[in-house]
Amino acid sequence: MFSLGIGLASKNLKGDVLDVFYPSVQLDPSKVLADALTLEHPALATADFVEVSLDALEAHSVHLPELASIEALVSKTTSQRPVSLLVTLLAEDTAVRSTPGAYLKLHLLSLRMVRPNSMNLEGIYANLPNVAWSSEGPIDLSELPERQLKARLEGRTLDILSVDKFPKMTNYVVPTGVRIADAARVRLGAYMGDGTTVMHEGFINFNAGAEGPNMVEGRISQGVFVAKGSDLGGSASTAGTLSGGGNLVISIGEDCLISANAGTGISLGDRCTIEAGLYITPGTVIEVLDDTLAPVKKVKARELNGQSDLLFIRHSQTGQVQCRTNKKAIALNDMLHSQN
Amino acid sequence: MFSLGIGLASKNLKGDVLDVFYPSVQLDPSKVLADALTLEHPALATADFVEVSLDALEAHSVHLPELASIEALVSKTTSQRPVSLLVTLLAEDTAVRSTPGAYLKLHLLSLRMVRPNSMNLEGIYANLPNVAWSSEGPIDLSELPERQLKARLEGRTLDILSVDKFPKMTNYVVPTGVRIADAARVRLGAYMGDGTTVMHEGFINFNAGAEGPNMVEGRISQGVFVAKGSDLGGSASTAGTLSGGGNLVISIGEDCLISANAGTGISLGDRCTIEAGLYITPGTVIEVLDDTLAPVKKVKARELNGQSDLLFIRHSQTGQVQCRTNKKAIALNDMLHSQN
Amino acid sequence: MFSLGIGLASKNLKGDVLDVFYPSVQLDPSKVLADALTLEHPALATADFVEVSLDALEAHSVHLPELASIEALVSKTTSQRPVSLLVTLLAEDTAVRSTPGAYLKLHLLSLRMVRPNSMNLEGIYANLPNVAWSSEGPIDLSELPERQLKARLEGRTLDILSVDKFPKMTNYVVPTGVRIADAARVRLGAYMGDGTTVMHEGFINFNAGAEGPNMVEGRISQGVFVAKGSDLGGSASTAGTLSGGGNLVISIGEDCLISANAGTGISLGDRCTIEAGLYITPGTVIEVLDDTLAPVKKVKARELNGQSDLLFIRHSQTGQVQCRTNKKAIALNDMLHSQN
Repeated sequence: MFSLGIGLASKNLKGDVLDVFYPSVQLDPSKVLADALTLEHPALATADFVEVSLDALEAHSVHLPELASIEALVSKTTSQRPVSLLVTLLAEDTAVRSTPGAYLKLHLLSLRMVRPNSMNLEGIYANLPNVAWSSEGPIDLSELPERQLKARLEGRTLDILSVDKFPKMTNYVVPTGVRIADAARVRLGAYMGDGTTVMHEGFINFNAGAEGPNMVEGRISQGVFVAKGSDLGGSASTAGTLSGGGNLVISIGEDCLISANAGTGISLGDRCTIEAGLYITPGTVIEVLDDTLAPVKKVKARELNGQSDLLFIRHSQTGQVQCRTNKKAIALNDMLHSQN
Repeated sequence: MFSLGIGLASKNLKGDVLDVFYPSVQLDPSKVLADALTLEHPALATADFVEVSLDALEAHSVHLPELASIEALVSKTTSQRPVSLLVTLLAEDTAVRSTPGAYLKLHLLSLRMVRPNSMNLEGIYANLPNVAWSSEGPIDLSELPERQLKARLEGRTLDILSVDKFPKMTNYVVPTGVRIADAARVRLGAYMGDGTTVMHEGFINFNAGAEGPNMVEGRISQGVFVAKGSDLGGSASTAGTLSGGGNLVISIGEDCLISANAGTGISLGDRCTIEAGLYITPGTVIEVLDDTLAPVKKVKARELNGQSDLLFIRHSQTGQVQCRTNKKAIALNDMLHSQN
Repeated sequence: MFSLGIGLASKNLKGDVLDVFYPSVQLDPSKVLADALTLEHPALATADFVEVSLDALEAHSVHLPELASIEALVSKTTSQRPVSLLVTLLAEDTAVRSTPGAYLKLHLLSLRMVRPNSMNLEGIYANLPNVAWSSEGPIDLSELPERQLKARLEGRTLDILSVDKFPKMTNYVVPTGVRIADAARVRLGAYMGDGTTVMHEGFINFNAGAEGPNMVEGRISQGVFVAKGSDLGGSASTAGTLSGGGNLVISIGEDCLISANAGTGISLGDRCTIEAGLYITPGTVIEVLDDTLAPVKKVKARELNGQSDLLFIRHSQTGQVQCRTNKKAIALNDMLHSQN
């Protein structure tokens, strides 16, 4: 069994699922529990999810530790709206084929149960509806104009936060030990390790992230993973596979610094620095210097892909892009990570 | 007749209009309708707008298709607050002279009824009040401190989203077929063609936009228009007429790529690329190469304004800014636009 | 006496203060008032703050002009929640030692009572709790999961705006004469002088700011101060002391322009320009030219720290970073500051 989630779904007027919030997620759930759930809900043998009542779950409360708090809250709640409770059971890590399945995988990433690039996310776009995320929750785009008009006529403010397939992470998962200065910049499905700070100009896409501790003031594109102790300066760019990026999935090793307004289209090993304002693309021709600054060779950047202890600069007097041994390791001390 | 809008206005305590939401907008409305409205509301002969009752509009419902849904909603509504219903009639596309007139023109752009740079927007700044946009709607800045204190004392959270003359587009218009990852980044008056995606780092000002399909991860400044199939990478900049930009209004042709952290102060024709991290200003001296890479001439970038099939790079070994024939057209396939 | 504030505090379930909103702030309060308050609330002799009732303050209303509006609002309020009213009295500008003290100092900056870099902010990080800032106010991170689940079960949307030690400024202070296109980009403790506009891509950290008038489309890092008439273009960077920045606190003089995608790691005097896309770090070797463009010397940028009338470019044909006398002063006229 790959994963099990107990979730609360929002739906449009037609009954299609718009999003699922999973307060209870298990990776590798027990076969006993999965078999029992499938026996009670035969639909789970062929579908990713089934809608259940809270009572139907009670028999499994010993295997579902979060259930008690859900039950306690439901008993106190005064909501008029019926809540859609889902059991989502993914037997294997196959391509995404349902909205609840897509949301469960995104939760697994943000809950740090699965690292980026280690799950099958094929089909995720097709299974995530494009939704208006609002101050009144997700709204189907075809229902939005009437909702907006109604709110205005009633003197309410219906604030539309985004129109997107992916919601922001913090409305589903807030991992421990992180700071996110503007929650709009981190998508559900981002992986944020303990000690990761995303400043206002930082960004983390889904299936991407930082091991922690890290200071993220730049953009971590889909598929990119940044190891511990590395920093992305303001507006620093890691090339994704869109907008001119290649097919190469980029990773950044430990204790690297991609300075402000710099960027990379290649992976970096450990202890690498790219100076402020310099963008390294895979095709950039680079003069490599040894540690006495003597020229060694000229190579395309892609040949340096993933190597450690490199310092990339553009010579300020010749305009030449050079790669030197990086003698100044980036020390991310406690002070740095307790302050910004 | 230029344009007609039926709108709902917010006002401050003095009765000044702070914003107008137009559920019903017509470009080039019928003269019959305009004449009838002017006859009933003589103020429209000299002013842009008049406040009306819903009943007063009923006689014109055949010409105002959206009226039915407004009426249906009003009949169901339970609002305590009186709603200010406006008829705004702009006989000609003259300079902006009222807040309702300014909002109607901004709606025309975002509703795709008018393209950027094809309307008279003179006077728009003077007619847009600077407003605190909040979770409780627009608030006059002089009324804000008391509102904030009152909310705190009552245990409510009054969230201030922005303090600006322009609100965000999505609270008025969400065009079909778009995605906007952070709605705070698109102003009312932006033009977003079908298939346009604005990522978290993207931005579109008013009277600016993208024809669609486009991937916008950079900034589309006021007046700038991007034709179909072109992409702006993360933090890519199109020079506006502020902060050092010139007077030149920039356009980007079809199938261009302004890569991440790059920028342009000149217009591009079709199939142009600017490499990541390179900023072309009108005064940048550029060596032009032919398709055998032989140098042809040196020119200032403004002489290349609007030309097609150009690839701009800064040579990584000489630091020289060069312009080559762009052999690699940017193929924006369906995959790209279904994914980010 | 350094400063006095009357504030409303939010607390977690344990009673710890999460934030304080100060409707009444005094710099250099009268000794009579301070002594009287300390006499009535002996805790103030040793602690920064004390919780009081509104009645207890009434005796001092002559010295507390804002008290009348608080009282008037309280008499009308219908809140069920008890409000925590604090008196915070900082006898001296010593290191920060309490959350109410930290918030009072941040208010002093945003209220323009104190300029950046002129207060003792030591200890501020340790005294600001990391909080989930939500549509229902600040929430203790340990209480968040239950709050999120409860909201979902009740059909409400609990929107998490950020997870940070610093809240956004506009929910506490909106100074006069400013515009802030995306309020998420300005932290409480930012100093925004009259006439300052922060566009969507602009950012101002705490203990940092702009004298006004200024157009801010780039990032003003902690400690950085920008004098009047200077502009930061889109994504322009001012190096802070994090992510590779040095220890140098940067200032920007009057009538400067740091163009789009440019940046500086040194201070600029008056009337300096950095061309679009160029990043000056303290170690950048720069060829200095006289006003006939004849080379004078080569220096590291840090030797030009704080000098006036400089134009920094990277020569587009040689790649050489040069510094010329800046002949084109940046004229920030009324038109510019009334429009963006």
